[in-house]
Order: sequence, then structure tokens, then C-alpha cells
Amino acid sequence: MKLDGGVLIANITPFKDNLEVDWNEMARRTRDLASIPGIQGFVVNAFAAEAPALSHDERQRAVAIHKDNIRPGQTVVAAILDWAPPSTIRRGEEAGEAGADAVMVCSPYLSAYNANHSPEYAFHFHKEVAEGLDMPIVLFQLASGDQLSYPHEALVKMASEIDQVVGVKMAQAADCVRYDRDYYALKSLNKEIICLPSVGSTFFHNLSTGGDGILSGLAAFAPYECVEMLNLVKNGDLNRAQALHRRLAPLCHAIYGFPYADLHTRYKEVAYMVGALSSPVLRSPQLRMKAAELDRLWRAAQIADLRPIPGADETRPRLAA
Amino acid sequence: MKLDGGVLIANITPFKDNLEVDWNEMARRTRDLASIPGIQGFVVNAFAAEAPALSHDERQRAVAIHKDNIRPGQTVVAAILDWAPPSTIRRGEEAGEAGADAVMVCSPYLSAYNANHSPEYAFHFHKEVAEGLDMPIVLFQLASGDQLSYPHEALVKMASEIDQVVGVKMAQAADCVRYDRDYYALKSLNKEIICLPSVGSTFFHNLSTGGDGILSGLAAFAPYECVEMLNLVKNGDLNRAQALHRRLAPLCHAIYGFPYADLHTRYKEVAYMVGALSSPVLRSPQLRMKAAELDRLWRAAQIADLRPIPGADETRPRLAA
Amino acid sequence: MKLDGGVLIANITPFKDNLEVDWNEMARRTRDLASIPGIQGFVVNAFAAEAPALSHDERQRAVAIHKDNIRPGQTVVAAILDWAPPSTIRRGEEAGEAGADAVMVCSPYLSAYNANHSPEYAFHFHKEVAEGLDMPIVLFQLASGDQLSYPHEALVKMASEIDQVVGVKMAQAADCVRYDRDYYALKSLNKEIICLPSVGSTFFHNLSTGGDGILSGLAAFAPYECVEMLNLVKNGDLNRAQALHRRLAPLCHAIYGFPYADLHTRYKEVAYMVGALSSPVLRSPQLRMKAAELDRLWRAAQIADLRPIPGADETRPRLAA
Amino acid sequence: MKLDGGVLIANITPFKDNLEVDWNEMARRTRDLASIPGIQGFVVNAFAAEAPALSHDERQRAVAIHKDNIRPGQTVVAAILDWAPPSTIRRGEEAGEAGADAVMVCSPYLSAYNANHSPEYAFHFHKEVAEGLDMPIVLFQLASGDQLSYPHEALVKMASEIDQVVGVKMAQAADCVRYDRDYYALKSLNKEIICLPSVGSTFFHNLSTGGDGILSGLAAFAPYECVEMLNLVKNGDLNRAQALHRRLAPLCHAIYGFPYADLHTRYKEVAYMVGALSSPVLRSPQLRMKAAELDRLWRAAQIADLRPIPGADETRPRLAA
Repeated sequence: MKLDGGVLIANITPFKDNLEVDWNEMARRTRDLASIPGIQGFVVNAFAAEAPALSHDERQRAVAIHKDNIRPGQTVVAAILDWAPPSTIRRGEEAGEAGADAVMVCSPYLSAYNANHSPEYAFHFHKEVAEGLDMPIVLFQLASGDQLSYPHEALVKMASEIDQVVGVKMAQAADCVRYDRDYYALKSLNKEIICLPSVGSTFFHNLSTGGDGILSGLAAFAPYECVEMLNLVKNGDLNRAQALHRRLAPLCHAIYGFPYADLHTRYKEVAYMVGALSSPVLRSPQLRMKAAELDRLWRAAQIADLRPIPGADETRPRLAA
Repeated sequence: MKLDGGVLIANITPFKDNLEVDWNEMARRTRDLASIPGIQGFVVNAFAAEAPALSHDERQRAVAIHKDNIRPGQTVVAAILDWAPPSTIRRGEEAGEAGADAVMVCSPYLSAYNANHSPEYAFHFHKEVAEGLDMPIVLFQLASGDQLSYPHEALVKMASEIDQVVGVKMAQAADCVRYDRDYYALKSLNKEIICLPSVGSTFFHNLSTGGDGILSGLAAFAPYECVEMLNLVKNGDLNRAQALHRRLAPLCHAIYGFPYADLHTRYKEVAYMVGALSSPVLRSPQLRMKAAELDRLWRAAQIADLRPIPGADETRPRLAA
Repeated sequence: MKLDGGVLIANITPFKDNLEVDWNEMARRTRDLASIPGIQGFVVNAFAAEAPALSHDERQRAVAIHKDNIRPGQTVVAAILDWAPPSTIRRGEEAGEAGADAVMVCSPYLSAYNANHSPEYAFHFHKEVAEGLDMPIVLFQLASGDQLSYPHEALVKMASEIDQVVGVKMAQAADCVRYDRDYYALKSLNKEIICLPSVGSTFFHNLSTGGDGILSGLAAFAPYECVEMLNLVKNGDLNRAQALHRRLAPLCHAIYGFPYADLHTRYKEVAYMVGALSSPVLRSPQLRMKAAELDRLWRAAQIADLRPIPGADETRPRLAA
Repeated sequence: MKLDGGVLIANITPFKDNLEVDWNEMARRTRDLASIPGIQGFVVNAFAAEAPALSHDERQRAVAIHKDNIRPGQTVVAAILDWAPPSTIRRGEEAGEAGADAVMVCSPYLSAYNANHSPEYAFHFHKEVAEGLDMPIVLFQLASGDQLSYPHEALVKMASEIDQVVGVKMAQAADCVRYDRDYYALKSLNKEIICLPSVGSTFFHNLSTGGDGILSGLAAFAPYECVEMLNLVKNGDLNRAQALHRRLAPLCHAIYGFPYADLHTRYKEVAYMVGALSSPVLRSPQLRMKAAELDRLWRAAQIADLRPIPGADETRPRLAA
């Protein structure tokens, strides 16, 4: 897997009113998003996709549909969330059979675990997965402060010592110093590690330090803005990047704000508001937003003034019912 | 499910050197533990059992083996750890078919989730599970400070408003004030909620406030001491309870100490040291203790001077290889 | 300084409506409290006394007044809160000149300081103070989680290696395991360290493990209950201690509950409600409680049903205006 | 007080080997630093100056010396750290008499205080100070996560509702999103609030969002680099700002890294290493760095390759003894 200044979309799973996956919508939206210049591929079955609520068969089909609808040169990364290395390997193999080019291994959850205090669990988990799975691996660095967030040294050690690791989803979130420390260290290794900022509220800051692209659920409904931010920073256009950062700030602060667990629901609601998704229907355990929160997202989305994606629903923007 | 001052053992899964479950050992140990006066039953497939590393079929067989080896009047509770309510319901139903009398629903993990900030996720998760699963439910209250730990109000609301909730695994850990607040509130509801202290280092304090029994992995190798603590406090014998608390303190502080993620591994190592388990072999993602840590556990276990369980291996106590 | 199962009252400073210290009230209340069997002395100029809002001269006079109004055998400990060791020494010397028998050195505040990460600051601070001040020193162990709370090892090291340290105010608060670890370690040193539980919500639990007395602002208005808890636990009367713990729990949970910064204001409000103080007037930076909070304290105080102190205002209990 | 793209130096106090303040050195260094284009003035008696270890008279003299050695148009801000509003007012008045143009009120420390949980304390503290002190006030926003750090809403309310507040020391540190939220909100008020990034590791990110200057102890020994970063960002020169950010990163990550309490000691050590200070002697409670840490700072300082300040000691750079 290789990224040269492009955007990977952590795609959102559309559901029908009866809670079945809307496969036609998934195919259509994927095709439309894939047509946008600067889009490098998709991450399937991530949290943005509500993967914890998808069945095994649904996850497999999601990978296949994305594979079928990308353009030449684009890539499909399958996110894997599992409890133990052997089952993670099996899920990775299955994703590969369904067409995934690489896997993104989510930060494992262990009981009573704090990755800062017990970083060796994370290391051995990924090492065992890598030994059993013949695919490129993207690590998932969570927000600083999250119990499952790898400490700096552990992240660098995994990237350095596990051959199959090719990149890192950089979701350090608000902690820009942590991003900088991780980025500089990952880029000083004797192997190439692609670093992909993931949290919209810090794209500008992260990319200003340095970055190889973007990997985010935000790109499912703001792909043009993600590509634009990448290009502005790459071209050294600080003033226009600063202005774009400011314009997106209210939306990003709403989406990535308190409480953080609503993040993936907010992705879906905003995608629906701006016409990038035909329905905001969720599966549990996610919950719909309350009206006041929807209203806040709506106002922020108006300020952001996102460019409609190809095939966007005509009645956009609209306030979710 | 009903507990009258008894102990539920969160059982430990024995593995052979080839990492297969040692079903004979599981059956034998369960039978031996079940013979101890004061043992009320077993919790199967909890973290102490390394359930995240067990397959579906293994979890089913573990329930069945426990069901086959308990004594009349004893109970089998199946712990369920899953991502979403519908799959939690299915796993609960399967556990029921295998012989479980009740389920213990582990605190759900959601991405970017902090249960203190978003308690409604926990509530709706359990509510949906309860609506789809015709079994008694035990809630799992984690250590204060854990991201997945329910805030007081959410715990009380779940216990109060979800009919099938019959009890709470009280693992508030070091935070005795939180235990007290939860306990007093749960006991003031218009329904019976059994409260089961779970963390050995605070059994004395928790039971001194009040408690209906014990639910703990500690009981898999210190069943006599768990029963004794229950009885001493029930009988108001503060001096002897204080002395027992002091004697167990070094072991409990080692087992439940920093880093907390090693807790379940330490259960297994100590169970092996004292002859309650024939092997300390673990499955990943758990990792073996380092020698210095084993030595620390060993010295603490000698102070604790645990009474051997029936059928304990003769060569106990012993230092793990 | 020596304590044998007695109570040290962290006294509250009474103010007149014009915000001057009410010295007559201070003398009278001190005399009345000192007459209660089991009261061993007073801690003056602690946070309960709003010492940060007192001038140098007021702090000196407060020490002198307490010295003048205690009974034979009782002790006066002066709390010292200062930024640097040399000025702490001077304040300690002045307190000694005013009549203090010992000093309690409050946990020093340094910019950007976290005592868990930089325990050497705490150690050297106290060591330098001890080298320059010829008085017994009581350490102040704050609630676990507070930035200024000493880690276990640092506390034990200070108690062990600094000769003048004779005792510890044990305000570990909700974290009973931390109390236990600290207590067992402090009691295993080759010198006597008196351990004084300080947080009312955990007196029962702390003393059940072990303790040499109580040091608390709670004792300024609930002295009989503090003495009673000490005696019940000392006598091994678990059932009556449990019942007293339960009766005091709503009041203690309100006083020591969220937000914790209101603790000292709540002391004063409740002292006024139950007639142990003639006015709840505060100096800034403390703020009066809101009506809803006062109402909550009032209801909790009624359940606690505290025995009136000698000379209690007749119209008690009463709701603060 | 007004800042137009300039740098305020939080100055460092030089001590002689006998721990007396070296007033000649203070005057000389102040004069030298004041001569650098882009330097707008000085903050005196801040934590960088070890103010907690200075006496009243020393703080007054420090203000006067700075006043005597600045250039026309430059400003002197006196930092005030105190326990209560009335004494803060007195210290502010005294600073004014000594020549200060404005005060920076440090975040007040209260026992058991967490500013996130009890923001009203911070508000009323500053409001009372403002009512009693006829001077411009700079607020001090600490690092996110610090117990004394104001929540966003409280900061904005203080800036908005307290007339005398003219600026904010923006030390949100690693939390760039918090800086952005604060900055955008402060700049949208109906009054001018100058926002001064203070933490070197995030100058680039903070200024890229927006900022009116810099207020930092880093500027006491890296004044040219602070001015350069300001100018590069102001001129939209992303590439050169990015390169400067990268060059300074190892030094900034060392100075502002773990443990954070060493920050002010590190300022002094590095100032000494690079010849900007004649001695690294500290007063307690600060402690000298250990050799390994000094070595780390030294290597980072070499990478940073700071431009010598006027009058820098010739033998620079040098490793502290």
C-alpha cells in the first residue's frame, strides 16, 4: 500500500429503515466518491462504518463492494476489530479474500487495560497478527488520553520492528505535540511509514508538521475539503489553509467535540444533512443525536459550506428529522 | 438467580501446553471447587477465563461443563462480551441453551467512548439486550476511572428500570466511596438487586458496608478465604476480619495492583503457584509475567497462606517456571 | 506530638458579617470543643480554616487563641501552606512562637507540577523544611488523583527518611486501597508514624484497616460521632460502626462529593446548620453554596442527626439563609 | 497594554552562588534582550522567574529593574501568584508602584480544586481582583489537563465580562484544538483580547491558527527564533515556518516534555547552556536536572542552533556542570 498525498475515506455504512445494509447505496456512494480527484481509496469496516454492529457476512460483502467500485490505483483497507490475535488473523485473511489490499488493526481492548501502563500487550498483539497474516498492516493510534492509545515509544517500536506495518492512522486528535513527536520519529525510521492524519479538527496542524495523506470518516462527506487542505499545505499556501481551517472549525469542533463517543454518529448525521447519504439510520449500540445536537451540527455545517459530492441528494442541505 | 451470602467463582480456563483447553482439568477443578461449603456457583467465560481468546464452541462447552459439575442449588452465570446488542442477545441465548442460568453482560466497548460522558449508550445497550433475552442479567460495574465504568446514576437507572437486572458485579475496586454510594442506592430500590463485591483488595471494606456475596476470580484459588471473609463480616467479627484482610493484603495488592491489565494473568499464575491449577499457560493477548513479578506474587502468596483447595496439586506451593 | 486514639479537630474560622475574624467566637468554640472526651487537640490554619484568606497576623493569633483554650494534654498543630521551603520554615517558626506544638506542612503547589511524576520535589521540599525547623512535622497526603498527591513510595520515603516527620494526615479519600497500602507501609517503618484518617466518608473503612486517631474538619461539628467511630472500631463493634457509617453516609457523601473544591465551604455551612458556628460567612476565594446545594446538605444533616456540641446555638438545626 | 505581533519575554531570575539574586546580571540581560527587534516587553515574577521563591522585596525590585532597562514603547507585566483576591490586589498595587504596566494573574490554587468542575471560583477570583485593582489584567490559561486550567466557557466569560482583562497567556500546551476554540471565541468578543501563545512546542500551530504575539520563558534565550516564527507565520511562509518548527522541535519537546514540572528548571539550564545566563543556580523548591537530562537538553539545544543573544557569554554553547 502506498499513498502519495491522497485521501483514504473511512466509509459510512448506509442502512435502510428496516436496519438492513443498503448495498445499492453503498455501491453508488463508493463509486461517486471514488471519482473525486485526490481520493486514493477506502477504509472499510472501521468505526465510521459501525463495524461493531455488522455481521461477518456483511463485513465481507462491504469489502467486496468497495473493491468492485474503486478506480484503478485506488486501494481498499479493511479495518479489523477483534479480541485476540488468532481471530484477528482469520478476519484479516477473510478480508483479503474479499478483496482488501491491507488491514488496519484497531487498538485491541483488554479488560482493565491501559495501553500507557502495559504497552507490551499492544506490541505482542500486533506482532502475532503480523506473523500470521500476509498483508500490509496500518496501525491505529488513538486520541491521547484514551485508555487504548499507544504510548509514543510503543507506537514507534511497532512501526519499526514489525515488518508488515506500512502506515499509521494518526488519530492523536487534539494533542498536536503528540502527533509531532510520533510523526518525526516514524519518519526517521529505516523504513517507510505513511502517516495519515485522521481527525478533521487537526488536519491543518498535523499536515503543517507533515503527513502523507488523510484517512478519515470526514472524507465521506467532505472529500473536496480534505483534498483541498492536503494540497494547500503541500503547496505552502498558509493563508488559504488557515482560512479553510477556520471555515471548517465549527463543524470539526462539533463533530469531534464532547462527548467524543458521538463522533461516528455525527459523521452519519452530517453526511445525511449534506446529501452524501440517503438516510441517517443507525444500528445499535450507536444512538441518534438529540434535536439540540442536530441543530448545532446543522449550523456548523452551514458555515462549513461543503462542496456537494457527486450524486449528492438534491434536497441538500437539510435538517435531519 | 439468588445469592444468600455465598461466593460465585469467576473460573479460570486451563490450557494444555498446545494451547487447547484442558476440558478434563476444567471439569475436575469445577467439581472440586463446587464441593466447598459456601460456594454458590460459577461465572463462566469472564475475563478471568480469558474469554476473549475462546472460540464460540469453546465458550459453549465451558458453560456445559460447569453445568454438569456443579452441585444442586448452585448456579452458572455466563459472561457475555460483545460489541452490539443483537449479537449479545444471540450469545446469551446460546449460553442459555448450554445451561447457563443467567448472563453477566460486560461493559460494552465503543470507539471513543467514555461511559461517564455518554452513559446513555450503556443504558440503551442493556435495555435492548434485556428486551431480546429472556434471562436474568447481572451488570458489570468496573473500577472507577476506567473509561467503560458506568457513572453512579447510570448504574442505578439500569438496575432500577431494566426488569431483568437481578444483580451487579461490584468491581469499583479501590474506590470504596463509590461502592458505598452504589450499594446504598441499589439497596434502596423497589426491587431486589444482589450486590457482589469482586475485587479482593476491598472485600473487607465492601462487605463491611454491606454485600450479598462475592463474585471474583480470586475465589478460584482462595475460595476458603473468600467464604471466611463473608462469614466473619456477617457475624460482626471485626477483629478477625481485619486480621484476614491484613494477611491477604500483600497478595491482593500484588494481584490488583499496577498495571491493572495483568490482573487476569496474575490470577492464573497464583492459581498455579498454590496448586489450584495444573498449568499457567495463557492464550494471547494475555502475556506471561516477568520473573520479578512472579517472585513478588510468590512472596505475597506465602504471606497469604491460602488453604489448599480440594484436589490441590501436591507439590504446591511452587514458583512458576 | 502523640495521639492515642484521639481526634484532632481541623478548626473552622468564624467571621463576622464585616469579614473580620470573630475572635471571641473562635475562643468560645475552641473551649467548648476541647471539653469533649476524646478530643486530643486542634489543627489551626488548615484549609478548613480558610487559611489562604487569612493574614499573617490572623494566623498567628489563631494559633495563640487555640493554645489558650485547649485543655492540658491537648495539642495545637499549625498548618503551613507556602510556596518555598525557606518561607515555610519562617512560617513554622512563627507558629511555634505563637504556641504551636507541631506543624502540618501542606502539599506544596508548583507550576506544572504533578507529584506522581515528580515526587522528588515533595521529598526535597519537606527535607529542607525539616532541616531548618525544629518542630515535629505532620505530612499531608491528599486524595488520590489530586495533582499534588504524593505517590505511595514518596510518602513512605518522607516518613522514613525525615526524622521530624511524626505523622500523616491521611486524606486519600475514596481510595481505600491506597490508604491500606500507605498505612501498612508506614506502620512497618523503624519509627513511629501516627496515621490520622481525615475524610469522613472513609473513617469507617480506614479505621477498620487501622488508624491512630482522626484529623478532620468534620470533627468541628461532629466531634461526638468522630470519637464514637474511633471507639466502636477500636472495640471491634462492627455492627454498630457499620450502622453509624450508614447514618453519616448521606452527609459525608454530600460534604466530600462533587465538586470536591466545595468541601471546606460545606464544612462551614453544616457547622452553621447544626449550631456549631454562629455564622456561615466566608472570605473569598471560597463562595457560598447555592440554595439547592444547601438544601441537599440540610437533608443529609437531618439524617446524620449529629449530637449538638457543647454551647451549640439553640435554634439548631436550621437552614442557612 | 497593546501587542502588535511582538514577543513578551517571561524573564528568568539569575542567582549568585550564594542564592542571592544577581541584580546586575538581571539588569544587563534585560537591557540586552530589550535591544532585539520584535521584543515588546517583559513579564516579571512569573514561574519562569521562580517567583514562588522570591521575597516581596525581591519581586518589587525585579519589576523596577525591568522598568529601568526596557526601551521606549516596551511594557512590563508583573505576574501575581497569590491565594486570595484581597492579597492579590495588594500585590498588584505594589507591582504598579514599582513600575508594572499590567498584571498577569496566575491561576489560583485552592485546596481540592479542579477548575473544570468549579469554574465559578476562577471567575469570582478574577472579578474581585479586577474590582479592586486599577490595572490591565492578563489571564493565564494553563495546559489542558492541569487541575487549575480554566474550561473554555470560563475563560471566555472572564475575558468577556471583566472589563480590565486585556489579554490571555495561551498555555494550552499540546492541546491545539483547545487553543483554536479559545482563540476563535476570544476573537469574536465585542472587545479586543490579545492572545499570546506561550508554549514553544506549539507556537507554530497556535500562530498558524492566529495569535497576537508570544509570551514565553523560551524567549529569554531564544528571542530571535520566537520573533522569526511570528514573522514567518504572519507572512504566510509555511515552508520556512515548518522548517523552523522542525528544527526547534527536539528542544521544545525536551523542555516542555515529561515531567512537565521541570519546565522552568529546563528554561534556566538551557539559558545557561547557550550563554544567555551566567549561572544555572536555582532556589528551592526547584531542583537541578540530573546529568542524563542535561545531556538530553544539550543535544536538543545543538540541533536548535539558537542565535546567541546580545552579550551572550563567549564560551557558549557549553554543558552545565
